[in-house]
Amino acid sequence: MAMFRPFLLLVAVGLYAQTPPADSLVTSPEIHPDRTVTFRVRAPEAQKIGLFGDWMPIGKLEPLTKGADGVWTLTTGPIDATGHLYTFNIDGVVVPDPVNPKIKLRQRTSASLLEIPDSSAAWAERDVPHGSLVTEWQKSAVLSRTEKMIIYLPPGYQKSTARYPVLYLVHGSGDVPESWANAGNANLILDNLIADKKAKPMIVVMPAGHAAPYGTRGQDNTALFDGYLTKEIIPYVESHYRVAAGRANRALAGLSMGGGHTINVGFAHPEMFSAIGPFSPAVPRDFDTKYKLEKNPGFKLVWIACGDQDNTVQYPRVKQFAENLNGHNVKAVLRTINGGAHTWPVWRICLSEFAPMLFQ
Amino acid sequence: MAMFRPFLLLVAVGLYAQTPPADSLVTSPEIHPDRTVTFRVRAPEAQKIGLFGDWMPIGKLEPLTKGADGVWTLTTGPIDATGHLYTFNIDGVVVPDPVNPKIKLRQRTSASLLEIPDSSAAWAERDVPHGSLVTEWQKSAVLSRTEKMIIYLPPGYQKSTARYPVLYLVHGSGDVPESWANAGNANLILDNLIADKKAKPMIVVMPAGHAAPYGTRGQDNTALFDGYLTKEIIPYVESHYRVAAGRANRALAGLSMGGGHTINVGFAHPEMFSAIGPFSPAVPRDFDTKYKLEKNPGFKLVWIACGDQDNTVQYPRVKQFAENLNGHNVKAVLRTINGGAHTWPVWRICLSEFAPMLFQ
Repeated sequence: MAMFRPFLLLVAVGLYAQTPPADSLVTSPEIHPDRTVTFRVRAPEAQKIGLFGDWMPIGKLEPLTKGADGVWTLTTGPIDATGHLYTFNIDGVVVPDPVNPKIKLRQRTSASLLEIPDSSAAWAERDVPHGSLVTEWQKSAVLSRTEKMIIYLPPGYQKSTARYPVLYLVHGSGDVPESWANAGNANLILDNLIADKKAKPMIVVMPAGHAAPYGTRGQDNTALFDGYLTKEIIPYVESHYRVAAGRANRALAGLSMGGGHTINVGFAHPEMFSAIGPFSPAVPRDFDTKYKLEKNPGFKLVWIACGDQDNTVQYPRVKQFAENLNGHNVKAVLRTINGGAHTWPVWRICLSEFAPMLFQ
Repeated sequence: MAMFRPFLLLVAVGLYAQTPPADSLVTSPEIHPDRTVTFRVRAPEAQKIGLFGDWMPIGKLEPLTKGADGVWTLTTGPIDATGHLYTFNIDGVVVPDPVNPKIKLRQRTSASLLEIPDSSAAWAERDVPHGSLVTEWQKSAVLSRTEKMIIYLPPGYQKSTARYPVLYLVHGSGDVPESWANAGNANLILDNLIADKKAKPMIVVMPAGHAAPYGTRGQDNTALFDGYLTKEIIPYVESHYRVAAGRANRALAGLSMGGGHTINVGFAHPEMFSAIGPFSPAVPRDFDTKYKLEKNPGFKLVWIACGDQDNTVQYPRVKQFAENLNGHNVKAVLRTINGGAHTWPVWRICLSEFAPMLFQ
C-alpha cells in the first residue's frame, strides 16, 4: 500500500499554490500532434496492464510496458480525430484512467473520455455562440418516479421571444440522459451548425431512455417510453419552453436502444413527428412483418444510419429494415457509415448530418 | 488478462433484455439498513486491495478480503447518512469503484460517490417541486477563454415572471463547477428549503473557481476571479435571468478555495454583496493584519463555518480570522461543526444552514 495517495492531503498542498500537488501523478492521456496518444499509469506493484479503446476490435487489449520508475506506458495510434472511450485493465480489473478527470457517465461502470482535437470537426469546441444545457427533474406518473431530462437551448434563447422546433434525442442502453452531451458533444454540434447557418436554431430534448429502470425485469421498456415521451415529456417541454407548435416542428431520433425507441414510437405516432432518425437502431424483433406498411405514415424524413462494422445491432439487419420500408410505402434514406462501429464517433456523424435536414 | 470484459459486447447482450448483462459484475456499494456498507471488487489477480473513504482519517486504508470466487469484500460502518467520496487502492493504484457509475467529477483523478440515505436530511431527494440546473458557457475576456457556469433556477422559474435574489456559490480546489450539485446536492438542498418555506426562492450561480486554470502558474487566481465574477458573471446573470436588483439581493459563499474567494472578493466589494459565507475557507495569508478593519463594511451577514477536525485549512486559523473580524468592526458568526473534516458532509450542512438566513 506504499503508493496510496490521500487525495484530501493533495487538496491541502495545492490549496494556495494553484498548481497540481507536487506528487507523483503522471500525465495521461497525452495527445501528440500526429494524433498518436501516450497512456500512462503509475503502478509499481501491478503485474499486467492493458488498454482497451473503442477504436480497437472488441476483445483486444494493447499492453502497457512497465518502466523502471513503476510507470506503465503505451504510445499508440494515430487515432481518429473525434471522441473516444477507453479503459485500463489493471491485473484483471477494468477501470477508467486513474488521472483523467473526463469520465463517460454510464448506467454501470465508468470509462474515460479521450478527445482527439480537430478544429474543423462538426463536434469541435469553436469560438461561436454557445447554447445552454438545462437539467430538469419531472415527476412522472407513467414511470412512477421523478426522472431527469437534459434540454439544449440554442444560443440567444434567453433573450429571444422566438419559438423553436424540437428534436427529441434518445441515448443508448449503457447511457444516461447526459450521454448525448457528455460523449456525443450534441450541444457543440448544434452550436456549430447554427453558427454556420447549416441547421435551424432548435431545442434538443434528451430524455431518459430507460423508462423501465436499467437492470429491472417485468416491465415493457418500449411501451413505457412511448407513454412517457408522448404524454409527459412533450407536454412538459411545450408548456415550459417557447416551442413552435405541431408535427412539422417535432423530430425524433436516437442511437441503439434509443434508435429502437425512435422506430417504435415514431411509427406508432406519425401524427406527432415529421422526421425520424434511427441511428444504429435496435431494430424491433418483428420488423420483418411489422414494417411492411400498407399506408405511408407521411413522414417528411426517415433517415436511418448505421456503421457497416456495427457488430451490436448488425448492419445487415438495419439495412434490411430500411429496404423493407422502401418497398412498402415509406421513403427511407439509409446512410451507411463506412468503417463505423457501434461507438460514439458514428453517432456524432449521425447528429451532425441529421440535424441540418430538419424543419426545412 | 483473463478478466477483461469488453463493455461494448455487454451493451450488445443487454440491448434487448433491459437487464444488466449476465456477466460477472458484482454489486458495489451495497448499503444496508443499519448504514453499514459492503464494498466489492472482482479482482482474482490482485495482490492487495484497500478502501479509503472520506469518513476515515487521511492516510488510512481499510483492507478488503479476497474470497474463493476472486471477489474482494469489505463491510464497514455504520457511516453517517450523507454523501461521501471513496476510492479503492488496487495494488497501489487509486481508482474509483469499477462498477459504481456515480462519480465525483474533479479537476484531476476521480472518486466514487456514496449516498447513505436519510429521508429527513436537508439534502435528501424528496417528493417536492424541483428546480433546474442550467449549464452556460460564457466567453470571458478576463480569463481569455470560454468558461462554464452552473445556474440553479428555483421551482416555477420558467412559468413565473418574478425576479429572484442570487447566491453566488464557489467550489473548492479539487472541484469543478458541477461539484456543488454533483457532490453537495445544492439543488436538492434549495428544493427542500424552498418547499418547506425555510428559504426564499433564489437563483444559485456556481461559477468556475479556477480563474487561473488548475495546474497553471504565474497568474493570480484571486485577482482574476474577482474580475471574472464582478465584471462578467454577475452582469451576464443579471442580463440573462430574472434577477432582483442590488446589493440586498446578492450573496457570496464558497468552500475551501471558494471560501478564500468569498473573503477576498466579498471584503473587496462590500457594495455588491449583503451577505458572505466562507465555508472551511482558505483564509488569506495576510488575514492577521488585513482584516483588522477600521470601518464596518456593512454586511448584513458574515457567516463563517468550519469543522473542528479540519486539517486542511485548519480550524484554529479560521477561528482566529472570525475573532479578528469581531474585534474590528465586523459582526461575524462562527459556526463550528463538531467532528467535521474538510469534506462534503460539512459543506452540505453549511449550505443548508446559510441559505435560510439570506435575503430576509
